[in-house]
Amino acid sequence: MPTDSLTALRNKVSDRLALVLEEHRDRFSGIGPEVADLFDVAGPLLARGKRLRAAFLAAGWRSFCGKPLSFSEIQAGAGLELFQLAALVHDDLMDGSVARRGLPAAHLQFRRLHDGRAMISDGEAFGAAGALLLGDLLLVAAQSELDAAVRRSEESAIARETVQEMMAEVTVGQYLDIYAQSAPWSADPTVDLDRAKRVIRAKSARYSVEHPLVIGAAMAGATREQRQGIRAVGLPIGEAFQLRDDLLSVFGDSDVTGKPTGDDFREGKRTVLVTVAMTLAPADEVELLKAAIGDPDLSDDQVDEVRRILTSSGAVEHVEELIAAKSQAASLAIDALELPEDRAALLRTVSSSAVTRDQ
Amino acid sequence: MPTDSLTALRNKVSDRLALVLEEHRDRFSGIGPEVADLFDVAGPLLARGKRLRAAFLAAGWRSFCGKPLSFSEIQAGAGLELFQLAALVHDDLMDGSVARRGLPAAHLQFRRLHDGRAMISDGEAFGAAGALLLGDLLLVAAQSELDAAVRRSEESAIARETVQEMMAEVTVGQYLDIYAQSAPWSADPTVDLDRAKRVIRAKSARYSVEHPLVIGAAMAGATREQRQGIRAVGLPIGEAFQLRDDLLSVFGDSDVTGKPTGDDFREGKRTVLVTVAMTLAPADEVELLKAAIGDPDLSDDQVDEVRRILTSSGAVEHVEELIAAKSQAASLAIDALELPEDRAALLRTVSSSAVTRDQ
Repeated sequence: MPTDSLTALRNKVSDRLALVLEEHRDRFSGIGPEVADLFDVAGPLLARGKRLRAAFLAAGWRSFCGKPLSFSEIQAGAGLELFQLAALVHDDLMDGSVARRGLPAAHLQFRRLHDGRAMISDGEAFGAAGALLLGDLLLVAAQSELDAAVRRSEESAIARETVQEMMAEVTVGQYLDIYAQSAPWSADPTVDLDRAKRVIRAKSARYSVEHPLVIGAAMAGATREQRQGIRAVGLPIGEAFQLRDDLLSVFGDSDVTGKPTGDDFREGKRTVLVTVAMTLAPADEVELLKAAIGDPDLSDDQVDEVRRILTSSGAVEHVEELIAAKSQAASLAIDALELPEDRAALLRTVSSSAVTRDQ
Repeated sequence: MPTDSLTALRNKVSDRLALVLEEHRDRFSGIGPEVADLFDVAGPLLARGKRLRAAFLAAGWRSFCGKPLSFSEIQAGAGLELFQLAALVHDDLMDGSVARRGLPAAHLQFRRLHDGRAMISDGEAFGAAGALLLGDLLLVAAQSELDAAVRRSEESAIARETVQEMMAEVTVGQYLDIYAQSAPWSADPTVDLDRAKRVIRAKSARYSVEHPLVIGAAMAGATREQRQGIRAVGLPIGEAFQLRDDLLSVFGDSDVTGKPTGDDFREGKRTVLVTVAMTLAPADEVELLKAAIGDPDLSDDQVDEVRRILTSSGAVEHVEELIAAKSQAASLAIDALELPEDRAALLRTVSSSAVTRDQ
């Protein structure tokens, strides 16, 4: 029963994450009572993840091995979740986002600690430094968990390479993302659209889905051909996952997504959704979009106007079609793996939930 | 001849770093031409390191094994240097430092790229994001190099644990450092002095000296007792190294150190030097110090006044005595290792150069 086992996996990963955090807290308590802040901020944020990447890792494993992976699976899943939170904490800091997973973003939490204690110096700088260091700490903890999990597997070299590629590629992809936000809009809108698609792939699709699947598959001893086969599932699902994310952050219920609607516009995110609208909308609306995207003071009314253009231009429909096409491609790629149906079940369930989710 | 072999080691580590950077550049060029910036900024900064940590790693190894470590030594040394630059890039960003190793700090380099290309959006935010991501990328690359080097050694488990402890502890120690900068001055100056000493240990001494020595020793197959013995060398040398660093950044030649004099004051660094002066200076000068430390607009004349107080209060002399005492403790700890003198030579040379350097 894939759904039951997914719930069990999520709970075990959550338990492991809580334990890792407490171990770190104990280990570094000797440095001084001040450093407890890092773990106090990390704990609730860590507890609220969807464990999507842990689920994909498990799906990658179970595609090529009948047995569950037990502790290594939990530990590798926890490593991926730590890495995800590291990326989010740094991302929110760079973007100046105010909320994450229904809580104040980490840099705001550190800022509030500063203000609440009547500390001296600049509270905003303290908040930024706290979040930067928390992200670094989570990155190192992620590496540690993944390394320990991977080392026990027979095919550790491939899995390790994939972990390292994943970690490096995300930071490089993030750079492309902030670069895109700062580049002047091109005269030819397809240039921006092309860049948006490269951003999705490098900073999100591969590390959210493709890499977790391949790490799991490699740990299960999948052949080179099998790993290529599961990559062909992971990349389109990862892209569809991010396209869904872009839609949700604009049209989703902010109580459910945990992030305020319109933040993507204010931060100047050049998503595929926005860049597709640039290619489809009439000239006056394109000008309006160019002025609105990246305006930190965008009002709620202006956010509504941007949303209206995204819909009326046909961009929303186009992105939904892209999601459907990518889901279809992934489904064919799952068929091509020729897995026994009981093994493919988890892969289908997790893939489908990543693309149809509402948060 | 330890000096010759040290120079050879530094050159080989530098060559390896250049190669690692080019490999990363090639690997990620597919993401787009934009990401070349990361490597363009990293290259010159990476080229200018003193390779102190690589030298300590080699000294740790050679204390317990007659043969040079060859490629693993180079690779592990390169990993430590990548980690060091990651920490510096993030540190400069948090501190708002303007220069590093005689070049503009990374966040300023990214800001200049932004301005030079007439990009849109906030240049300061782009610079900060670029430096944050470069630090993350270097952190991941460091881990990758260290992991590959350590994995080949027979005693990889201990060395790996030390690497992971080092990486996590630095971020936690950095948090204590920014916390100290933001905490109100205590009525009892020994509270601030105690915190300054904990900062030195956690964010600098251990990762600059003690951990590199222990990683090298572990890779050489040193026993638990031998590792404890070399820790007793590393910690005091690491503390003396940081105390020297604090003195140099206040009284050193900024052309040689590569950092503007007085930046430590403007950033509000609560160094041992400053907190010792708080315990020694007369009340009116203590008030002057409290007002000056952390004032971002401190004039050059005010910087000179702070320097005068640090000297006249006896704080400089006290710190020099601390350095001498710690060097002496390390020297006795080297004796206690009872190494053949040819093996101890590198350890003595590197330790001495860390404490008596002028940059």
